[in-house]
Amino acid sequence: MSRLDSFIRRLEAQRACLNAAARLIAGLPGNVLEFGLGNGRTYDHLRETLTGRDIYVFERKVAAHPDCIPPDDRLFLGDFLDSLPRAIAQLGQNTALANLDVGSGDEAASQRLARAMLPSVLQLLKSGGILISDQPVEDPALEALALPAGIKPGRYFLQRRR
Amino acid sequence: MSRLDSFIRRLEAQRACLNAAARLIAGLPGNVLEFGLGNGRTYDHLRETLTGRDIYVFERKVAAHPDCIPPDDRLFLGDFLDSLPRAIAQLGQNTALANLDVGSGDEAASQRLARAMLPSVLQLLKSGGILISDQPVEDPALEALALPAGIKPGRYFLQRRR
Repeated sequence: MSRLDSFIRRLEAQRACLNAAARLIAGLPGNVLEFGLGNGRTYDHLRETLTGRDIYVFERKVAAHPDCIPPDDRLFLGDFLDSLPRAIAQLGQNTALANLDVGSGDEAASQRLARAMLPSVLQLLKSGGILISDQPVEDPALEALALPAGIKPGRYFLQRRR
Repeated sequence: MSRLDSFIRRLEAQRACLNAAARLIAGLPGNVLEFGLGNGRTYDHLRETLTGRDIYVFERKVAAHPDCIPPDDRLFLGDFLDSLPRAIAQLGQNTALANLDVGSGDEAASQRLARAMLPSVLQLLKSGGILISDQPVEDPALEALALPAGIKPGRYFLQRRR
């Protein structure tokens, strides 16, 4: 499989997870958290799929397409670990969906970051809320859900807060 | 359609064009030219699909994944318009497939660049050779071919040198 094949497969898997999560939270009120804006494609997909939800974005430094930049009052700018306590104070435990797309080229560092973020993310995620992650994260409060068909296990992680 | 949907569709279209072109040149000896290395995904796909072909890459400044960097003697480094005369002198008219993936954020500039490159590309492309382009380019020497199924007209351009 070429890197082009593998990249397409990863994006398709990401979209399938986002769409599955959107269906899973259909009956659950609450906001949506996007960790890592990047070029803004995932954010754009979330706001198209989850119209009417408040979507808060966490990003170190905004470099997205101008059409995909969230309004100032929906953006937690800076280091995730610095912004998370501010988000908890502001939003409380009212998140229906959190998407942790925090992988960088450095796999070990990405996993450490996701694990360091997890306790704070769990303070935001309400019972029944969904966590999508591109890094393996585990907690007794989370139950693993089956991935959408065709996604290789380990490519994404789909979990629900008990 | 979200930007994620649209990006996936563009990559799938690109892959379908590359695979169609590979089939079209199956009986035609000759080298392959890749204009724009980028992250190297397309190059990786070409070298997987067209094993045994000499693949020459044109790139202003290499910033690809380390696994996807062509050998020095297959790389024309610098401005396309500067490298093309060198390539013509070195390779002659022996190209079976040329992939012009030269689009940048600036649509008008991308089209100007592709049009400026075309006369030189046609000096390299042999009769029966295939030109894939992400920009609209036209020449009496080129006949348009049908795009693979599912690709929106205008997303890619598939042509054969008469």
